[in-house]
Amino acid sequence: LRLILLGFGVVGQSFVKLLLSHSTDLYNDYGIKPKVVACADHKGIVSCNPGLDLDRLLNVKKKKRSVIQYGSNTDTSGIFDVIENTDAEVVIELTPTNITNGEPGKTHIIAAMKSGKNVITVNKGPLALEFPSLMELAEYNRIAFKFSGTVGGGTPILEFAKRCLRGDRIISFEGILNGTTNYILSKMYEGLNFTQALRDASEKGYAEKDSTLDIDGYDAVAKLVIASNLVMNMKSTMSDVVRTGIRDVQPTRVMNERKKGNAIKLIASCDGKNLVVKPKPVSIKDPICVDGILNAVTFTCQHSGQQTIIGKGAGGMETASSILRDLIDIRNMIRS
Amino acid sequence: LRLILLGFGVVGQSFVKLLLSHSTDLYNDYGIKPKVVACADHKGIVSCNPGLDLDRLLNVKKKKRSVIQYGSNTDTSGIFDVIENTDAEVVIELTPTNITNGEPGKTHIIAAMKSGKNVITVNKGPLALEFPSLMELAEYNRIAFKFSGTVGGGTPILEFAKRCLRGDRIISFEGILNGTTNYILSKMYEGLNFTQALRDASEKGYAEKDSTLDIDGYDAVAKLVIASNLVMNMKSTMSDVVRTGIRDVQPTRVMNERKKGNAIKLIASCDGKNLVVKPKPVSIKDPICVDGILNAVTFTCQHSGQQTIIGKGAGGMETASSILRDLIDIRNMIRS
Repeated sequence: LRLILLGFGVVGQSFVKLLLSHSTDLYNDYGIKPKVVACADHKGIVSCNPGLDLDRLLNVKKKKRSVIQYGSNTDTSGIFDVIENTDAEVVIELTPTNITNGEPGKTHIIAAMKSGKNVITVNKGPLALEFPSLMELAEYNRIAFKFSGTVGGGTPILEFAKRCLRGDRIISFEGILNGTTNYILSKMYEGLNFTQALRDASEKGYAEKDSTLDIDGYDAVAKLVIASNLVMNMKSTMSDVVRTGIRDVQPTRVMNERKKGNAIKLIASCDGKNLVVKPKPVSIKDPICVDGILNAVTFTCQHSGQQTIIGKGAGGMETASSILRDLIDIRNMIRS
Repeated sequence: LRLILLGFGVVGQSFVKLLLSHSTDLYNDYGIKPKVVACADHKGIVSCNPGLDLDRLLNVKKKKRSVIQYGSNTDTSGIFDVIENTDAEVVIELTPTNITNGEPGKTHIIAAMKSGKNVITVNKGPLALEFPSLMELAEYNRIAFKFSGTVGGGTPILEFAKRCLRGDRIISFEGILNGTTNYILSKMYEGLNFTQALRDASEKGYAEKDSTLDIDGYDAVAKLVIASNLVMNMKSTMSDVVRTGIRDVQPTRVMNERKKGNAIKLIASCDGKNLVVKPKPVSIKDPICVDGILNAVTFTCQHSGQQTIIGKGAGGMETASSILRDLIDIRNMIRS
């Protein structure tokens, strides 16, 4: 399998490390011998027809800050030229999430699909904004479009819903889809106020400098849109979600609910019609009432009842493992 | 798809109800038009080449206690004659679990496999006692052998491990695999002693008259054996598990742990080498620390970290939904 990597931050580098450490397993267990034939970061793209040397690629990125320092066989042609004209089966889109217009990921994905390449992404922006049209484009071009890392990071929430609950009907689902806000709310449950809890999250590296995507609920909204499209066949986008962030959650409310045996959690919910993200009280006995940076989703099914899946919703290596999962799926599709 | 049902208790009847209520969906979504061509209960077997009338079958069972009262086209030939000589693709084995010698399920399953029929079972006995040899026989006869309902009832614990965690490596897993003991231990956490909690479980219908299979840990052991074989490729049987039941859990121990923020749970664990079922303290903040009749399993993976799945571990309709899931899988295998 010949791969093009677009974006080479924490997740991209973790993915390359996974490829290096697992090459024998991947070949023995799944018949996959992946080659990274091009890799782009914010400064440019490097390509190499026989495959880039992955150790060297990681080293160059670490020491010289950009893959374009890779060496003499650097291809300085534009990124779209590489997407369209490189011989490769899979484009892996890992540029940062942009929920305003989905760029540059959206244009990358569309270019890859139009040139007949399968696409894997962990970039939430394009899907949150244009899920239905991207799925249509993938189908029209008969390529596989996989994005299991967009919801739950390494925790296979989407896969669970699609694969493990076949033959049953998911009536609704709800859960915690953002680890940063869950960490903050867990700290508020322990007695901190919002500002103190946010500072603690920043110090631990759980909150970004500009944390508005998390705090105001946009990240959870994006994931809810992706899950509702895939799991419930809704044709929704971000503007369909009623959103309230956690900025105005008061310590007194947290403590009052605590006395009643509840914790305030930022809950994303989908009942097949309404999409809502808002802080609300959850019984501490409810399986989705998890602490810290964990994510948790409960699916309510017609026959098998409620099923909850819990795991870390982020992390470089965790999310990289979701890309590998998607890659194995694509390999199996190509073979069959 | 032509089906033979062996065993027609709560799960079997729920499965037939599912077939009745979902016939349109099954055909539209999965291309399945199932016919039950034979059905056995403890009194005998009835078969009908064009397919039994499922409403009538349910009615006869309800009113006359046995399927052999079905009517004039009852076939009174022996059950093995029907398994071997009936034109059918799938045998669904639903006789009660017997962990002493696995019978009659084991002989049914072997006969079905030898006559080239695919097998679905929710009967834990044969698998707990002879997992490796049954898998070998299935492979030798090139038939599909599915048993997702044996662990977790309707909660797809085995499917999750096999399907959703591909490309990662499960290092260990542990969890609560028996709902009855979990209900009893949850009541002891609230202050009852063992005898009071067992009585409460019996009154609610969560404990059988002879509850030793649950209380002494055998049910959890059987499920642990099945999961360790399937998920970790261990060649284990029931005698490989170190087992302690909950009969001797003292209220003082429960209360002492409670003060430390723990609950005593009957935990089944597998680290790839050792298989253990025993009551032990679990932090109430741990995602597997669920209450009542819920089951919960945490898989620890090399890259994606810990993933927990929680759901009801039993129930007629829930377990029946697992059979439907297995049937859809078999349909997809036959097609491809």
